[in-house]
Amino acid sequence: MYQKRNALSITREEDFSAWYKEVINQADLAELSETRGCIVIKPYGFSIWENIKSILDNKFKELGHTNAYFPLMIPADLFEKEAEHVAGFAKEMAVVTHHRLEYIDGKLTPSGKLETPYVVRPTSELIIGKSFSKWVKSYRDLPLLINQWCNVVRWEMRPRMFLRTAEFLWQEGHTAHETAEEAIEETIRMHEVYKWFICDVLKLFAIPGKKPAYDKFAGAVDTYTVEAMMQDGKALQAATSHFLGQNFAKATDIKYQDRNGNIQYAYTSSWGLSTRIIGALIMSHSDDDGLNLPSAIAPYHCVIIPIIKDINNKENIMNYCNSIKEQLSMKFRVLIDIKDDSPQNKKWNYIRKGVPFICEIGIKEIENNLVFFIKRSDNLKPVKISKEEFINGFGKLLNEHDNFLKNNNENSCKAKLIDNIKTVEELTDYFNKNNGFARVKWAGTNENLAKLEDLSLSIRCIPTEQSDTLGKCILTGKETTQDVIVAKSY
Amino acid sequence: MYQKRNALSITREEDFSAWYKEVINQADLAELSETRGCIVIKPYGFSIWENIKSILDNKFKELGHTNAYFPLMIPADLFEKEAEHVAGFAKEMAVVTHHRLEYIDGKLTPSGKLETPYVVRPTSELIIGKSFSKWVKSYRDLPLLINQWCNVVRWEMRPRMFLRTAEFLWQEGHTAHETAEEAIEETIRMHEVYKWFICDVLKLFAIPGKKPAYDKFAGAVDTYTVEAMMQDGKALQAATSHFLGQNFAKATDIKYQDRNGNIQYAYTSSWGLSTRIIGALIMSHSDDDGLNLPSAIAPYHCVIIPIIKDINNKENIMNYCNSIKEQLSMKFRVLIDIKDDSPQNKKWNYIRKGVPFICEIGIKEIENNLVFFIKRSDNLKPVKISKEEFINGFGKLLNEHDNFLKNNNENSCKAKLIDNIKTVEELTDYFNKNNGFARVKWAGTNENLAKLEDLSLSIRCIPTEQSDTLGKCILTGKETTQDVIVAKSY
Repeated sequence: MYQKRNALSITREEDFSAWYKEVINQADLAELSETRGCIVIKPYGFSIWENIKSILDNKFKELGHTNAYFPLMIPADLFEKEAEHVAGFAKEMAVVTHHRLEYIDGKLTPSGKLETPYVVRPTSELIIGKSFSKWVKSYRDLPLLINQWCNVVRWEMRPRMFLRTAEFLWQEGHTAHETAEEAIEETIRMHEVYKWFICDVLKLFAIPGKKPAYDKFAGAVDTYTVEAMMQDGKALQAATSHFLGQNFAKATDIKYQDRNGNIQYAYTSSWGLSTRIIGALIMSHSDDDGLNLPSAIAPYHCVIIPIIKDINNKENIMNYCNSIKEQLSMKFRVLIDIKDDSPQNKKWNYIRKGVPFICEIGIKEIENNLVFFIKRSDNLKPVKISKEEFINGFGKLLNEHDNFLKNNNENSCKAKLIDNIKTVEELTDYFNKNNGFARVKWAGTNENLAKLEDLSLSIRCIPTEQSDTLGKCILTGKETTQDVIVAKSY
Repeated sequence: MYQKRNALSITREEDFSAWYKEVINQADLAELSETRGCIVIKPYGFSIWENIKSILDNKFKELGHTNAYFPLMIPADLFEKEAEHVAGFAKEMAVVTHHRLEYIDGKLTPSGKLETPYVVRPTSELIIGKSFSKWVKSYRDLPLLINQWCNVVRWEMRPRMFLRTAEFLWQEGHTAHETAEEAIEETIRMHEVYKWFICDVLKLFAIPGKKPAYDKFAGAVDTYTVEAMMQDGKALQAATSHFLGQNFAKATDIKYQDRNGNIQYAYTSSWGLSTRIIGALIMSHSDDDGLNLPSAIAPYHCVIIPIIKDINNKENIMNYCNSIKEQLSMKFRVLIDIKDDSPQNKKWNYIRKGVPFICEIGIKEIENNLVFFIKRSDNLKPVKISKEEFINGFGKLLNEHDNFLKNNNENSCKAKLIDNIKTVEELTDYFNKNNGFARVKWAGTNENLAKLEDLSLSIRCIPTEQSDTLGKCILTGKETTQDVIVAKSY
């Protein structure tokens, strides 16, 4: 007899990458599209993004930022202004060269060649900087705190759903300040917001820190990153914040009259978080039954499935379901599923979609004034409690759910934190058999980085929390106190 | 002695088009950008769009629609599937032909030519249809009710801020149904939503109806439109809803098994409203003092300007202002402006920005427990009432403000509704001296349409409310009962 092991046809153990795709597919989050490297974010996946947006947008506004909108297409020659920036992005740009299509030999063909080609924005420092240069005249106009929610395009040769797609959605914050100190302060403030959002709201396990100089954002002075650890021990760069110094202010001419009447270049920052974070959510909390979502961004906190075996009980059962929904709906997102499908199918559907609590309500529950539900994060544990207890305790149940996710993920990740590696040989040994975050010493020079590349490893960040112990650089043997996190990455 | 006439340097009477630009400029809504034909929507303008989005998004969701996201770049050859559609859009498409930039002779040059060019979406029927064709298998999967908030690009040769820009923001609803009847019902339902939003929420004056066949959306069976009348008597197509029949279902292969087990093509609809509506708002409610905004979408309902002549009164005044703000903030959007600028400058700034109520609070107001404010929509009328009366009556004040806007606009527009024109000569006479909406008879054939074009006129819509009287077609003399609205348009 065939025994169903789990809701998904493949487990993490068997093939992490195939499992990842299957979670997305079964939870109906996204699909490949007609456009190379681009996905369609389906309604359930998009509503996760809407929740992410709403939380971050409120936080940004609380901190004084306002939203605005800047052009999608950036004149190519604007990129000539910042040499490092263009070097970093030129290889993966979608370029608009024509402004119409025409039938030539029965085929739709680009025509109307543009004098200046346009780049579909891969990021907007330059075009936003050009506006800032008009908006900023005096120190009184600073700080300027702007955010944009939009789509960006970076031509990806090896696309992966959510993680690397040619087009993705994100927010990009752009700010201008009087002094370097204030711009750094803003950069770190937003880095802290990301850390809060990623660790406290999404319950991911992550290590915040600075990128090594060779890996910072193209054109930045410093890049701060939140490196989240996935269940397979690989790192995912979840959000970055850049102190741009005066580099982009000079490229786009953001000048202001300072308090002494002198004309100065402003200092700028930028920071972004994208739909990639949905990939991180999936690879952190999901299991072999599918998706599992923290309450803050779950499209539904609770789904109620009416079990109607005798049509005479239908009205009773629906009334009971509706009264639960009504009482929870003021604070929580609740759905009653009345679709024409079997309760069993429905249940497994919501398990794969990661709904925290799935209730099944039949005539027996009503007769005994009970709610029967399963806890998605507690290994699908079935629970039966009184209706009042369920309704009054629902907030607490959700908290427990979030703690389950957090602890599960943290325990799994903490076991993959390694800090006893001193040499490339030990690193090789470890990463031949395992994945994880290795905390090692690095003196900060670019020598012998190829040794890491050979192992498909990279320096993920210089963590904010340093051990301050002296040791030998793993790559050069030089004495240093600097800890870095080394890992494979997405 | 120079006497300031109004807050703007130019009046509607003097030059409507220059006045329009000046309203935008003085209210800080938008500006031209580095990209030809594209604007930057500045924070104040964007927050109007955020409010518009939020109201419509809630309404769409209430009616069962969910949001999703589809690719920006559409393979050019997908457009070959729908001949009328491509004919309508091919002339104004931004085409992506390369996927990187490279320095050639010191200039950044497109390189990495793509095998298939991509079009930056001008609208998404085809790419969304391709997804629908995967999502729909059975009648059980219908109706499918999807909406997308996004940017689109249509290459504009004569751009005008908000009204015609190469890139604009919009929502596009896309739905699929079992029967033509249901798709038509949905099309009309969304047309009614737009009518409600435009007339009842935004307080614009508009005539709803159907587009004449020659002017419907490229590929549609029927297009419904809400034609708003601007203060200068010209029409602005404010939102359209299309019944697409099976045209796009056939082009993108949206097939389903019906209730009898037969395979059928679905019937689809699409409907959209864009940032163009901000142009309509400006040209309907603004006056020679600048912008004027209905409360539903005004970024601030009330701005409080503290008038501090003696620094010793500062704390008192600020406490008083804060207490007003606190009490109003639960329901209303309130700002206290503490910027380093003169109260006079601030006041005129908010007048030009169309804030419904602008309060000035000095020591005298506090001593007498009063609020001094001006009513933006009532010719800047100054009012002094008790603090309690102001706070408790603020909702009523806002209603009055909205009614003012509605009535003002309606009166101005209704005077420009003409229904006694029977011949092209009378039409010529009228439109040589005036602008407005002329209700005339039209038999529905395409003969002699050039006579309208010669007068820069077009048939804006076949209004839903028909007089059902018999008369002679203004263009052909044929007998007909059909009324149409003829006007100049944006």
